[in-house]
Amino acid sequence: MIFAVVNIGQLVTVGGSPRPRVGKELGDLKIIDDAALLIEDGRIVEAGAHKQIKPKIPARAEVIDAQGRCVTPGFVDAHTHLVFAGNRAAEFEQRIAGATYQEIAAAGGGILKTVSLTRAATEDELLVAARRHRDWMLRGGTTTLEAKSGYGLNRETELKMLRVIKRLNKEGPARIVSTLLAAHTVPPEYNERRSDYVRFVEQELIPEVAAEGLAEYCDAFCDDHAFTVDETRTVLSAAKQHGLKLRIHAEQFRSGTGADLAAELGAATADHLETVTEETLEHLRAAGVQPVLLPGSVFALSRRQYPPARKMVEAGLAIVLATDFNPGSSPVPSMPFMLSLACVEMRLSPAEALTAATINAAYSLALGDQVGSLEAGKRADFLIHEFTDYRELAYFIAAPARPRVFVAGREVTL
Amino acid sequence: MIFAVVNIGQLVTVGGSPRPRVGKELGDLKIIDDAALLIEDGRIVEAGAHKQIKPKIPARAEVIDAQGRCVTPGFVDAHTHLVFAGNRAAEFEQRIAGATYQEIAAAGGGILKTVSLTRAATEDELLVAARRHRDWMLRGGTTTLEAKSGYGLNRETELKMLRVIKRLNKEGPARIVSTLLAAHTVPPEYNERRSDYVRFVEQELIPEVAAEGLAEYCDAFCDDHAFTVDETRTVLSAAKQHGLKLRIHAEQFRSGTGADLAAELGAATADHLETVTEETLEHLRAAGVQPVLLPGSVFALSRRQYPPARKMVEAGLAIVLATDFNPGSSPVPSMPFMLSLACVEMRLSPAEALTAATINAAYSLALGDQVGSLEAGKRADFLIHEFTDYRELAYFIAAPARPRVFVAGREVTL
Repeated sequence: MIFAVVNIGQLVTVGGSPRPRVGKELGDLKIIDDAALLIEDGRIVEAGAHKQIKPKIPARAEVIDAQGRCVTPGFVDAHTHLVFAGNRAAEFEQRIAGATYQEIAAAGGGILKTVSLTRAATEDELLVAARRHRDWMLRGGTTTLEAKSGYGLNRETELKMLRVIKRLNKEGPARIVSTLLAAHTVPPEYNERRSDYVRFVEQELIPEVAAEGLAEYCDAFCDDHAFTVDETRTVLSAAKQHGLKLRIHAEQFRSGTGADLAAELGAATADHLETVTEETLEHLRAAGVQPVLLPGSVFALSRRQYPPARKMVEAGLAIVLATDFNPGSSPVPSMPFMLSLACVEMRLSPAEALTAATINAAYSLALGDQVGSLEAGKRADFLIHEFTDYRELAYFIAAPARPRVFVAGREVTL
Repeated sequence: MIFAVVNIGQLVTVGGSPRPRVGKELGDLKIIDDAALLIEDGRIVEAGAHKQIKPKIPARAEVIDAQGRCVTPGFVDAHTHLVFAGNRAAEFEQRIAGATYQEIAAAGGGILKTVSLTRAATEDELLVAARRHRDWMLRGGTTTLEAKSGYGLNRETELKMLRVIKRLNKEGPARIVSTLLAAHTVPPEYNERRSDYVRFVEQELIPEVAAEGLAEYCDAFCDDHAFTVDETRTVLSAAKQHGLKLRIHAEQFRSGTGADLAAELGAATADHLETVTEETLEHLRAAGVQPVLLPGSVFALSRRQYPPARKMVEAGLAIVLATDFNPGSSPVPSMPFMLSLACVEMRLSPAEALTAATINAAYSLALGDQVGSLEAGKRADFLIHEFTDYRELAYFIAAPARPRVFVAGREVTL
């Protein structure tokens, strides 16, 4: 099947990046005005000037008129907790009323509430819930995403979550990369013997998940309320030995919690980093670790300390922007809103934010050669926006705009 | 035409308010579980428990199944600058890069950029632009809104804007209340003789607009960069004499800029109020002026000083929540996102925010007897949400959810 998209007023290719972009490259979107896309069998044959592509469009090809609008790659959301049962809107209300995280946890709220609901849900129920979240993301233009386990914290439910991710990826249309996050927090039944839980993850769960091919990455939450640097090292080293690639929740609330470990272990990403020091940024750079900025959780928690995105850019880091979609700290499924937060709160330019949300995010998932930009050979994941200029994506904050969303050359209807 | 909505899991009526709500009333949404709505000729016949309404549904009535979801009144957005040509995404980018308001204005940006584009646009071009903005609002669930002139600053273009508002209101489906905001800023051609502009607005424009019935309200921007308290008094006193009701942009950047004047003149609303003092809040309360909270402009301008919403609630004020949708300081058309900002940044509860965005907003537009709540006799403006609990509206921040939107009993398709 061959088709063309013509009359593209502004084609934002984000092309020409053989590796994740850093520094000034972040702002260079490789834009083509008055452009067209030629697509065959779900892949881009050519992205270029309209007059250059026009003679190559076969008579039999379907032609889509973009009406002068802006076309960008689909978003790549590199950090989500897509799969969970229930939600925590009641806790959101309590937090606004002034309840502390500790009070909410003591009242049966917090992450363990979601663990309890997720353990109780059947695999099919979880699939329905995850599909609903995924559909929101697709509507917002996310065509590739990462999804983590981590609300099971036992063998049965961690595997159940990973199977849901696998099924939803197979079902399509969005591509979903799977991450084991058994080291999300210590489950209540291990409260008095946390080292047993770490050992269970290290010696039982990781080998089984790796052998079954249920996850491509392993993640761990390194934090005062979660796992120490040593515990995190134990978990992630085992994962690495079993062939899993690594991501880390690091330095969200206090520096010294995991980012240097990400560099030490050669993790693909270090995520959060609100409190990261400049010294650690240099370690990340030297090790090629990509920082994943998650401003949704800062916003939703009414916090003020956003990760130091500009310092990361200056330090030469290949930043990534993601939603951290989850029912507690970031119930925010929208990548366009992340672009707005990146601009308004972290002083990234709209171009830098878009790069971080597409090609750099794709590289962080080892998919930089397949998605994240619009150029020959890549999967035809793209968005025809209601806008004529990509900057309007960040500027029209939380606008109920409805991009036309294409995954592998097929339009998604939701 | 008679029809019923059944199987409503949570019917948020916001009913039983003979006047705008204050204090603890703000949080009392008058919720009915397992409910139904009976609607005839665009009006609500009855809103109540399903078992109570079921026997009253005629056999010929169409029945809509709400599938256990949450139903709320349509949002009432009481402060928008709906009508403008072009946008200022480029300026958004400059501001993020560190340009000051003054630098942007000096480079031909700022409000005068929009004035220039709006003057140059035809009435039909403006109508198309305004309809696009209105459609975003409708998608987000706004069924009644206020819209201001203020990007003309001369007779021709102010009247053109008001005619666009009138046409779009007539076209429907959203109801639009029209406000003259000729005193938005001093137009460049009057820079050296601002008193002449005030006199023009007072003695020529207001009488003409009032005589033609082109506006129901008159608004003025009282601020260091706009009009002094005395100038604002001149404009609004003339408007009042000509039978227009009043709204004021007050105390956005500095206290002492207009809120006391709102109380003195008996304005319906005082809008912004980021810097308002407790003493002035008491004056507003005594005069029955409703504060309109506009957190979108605080957010979009990367500012931190939100209006003191909790103090307003404590002071017994009938708060209103609105978008301030405009191309400069608040390019944010979404009322659900205002609910999120109200909760996350101003510590309103989801219930207080919803009241401020519906029935209280309706009262601020003198429509409290017609819209803003779901009870017998009112216009059937309502939303069937994707959610089962109204709190999820604020909690799932910027979610691309798609409520089913009904205006006067007819479903809107966009």
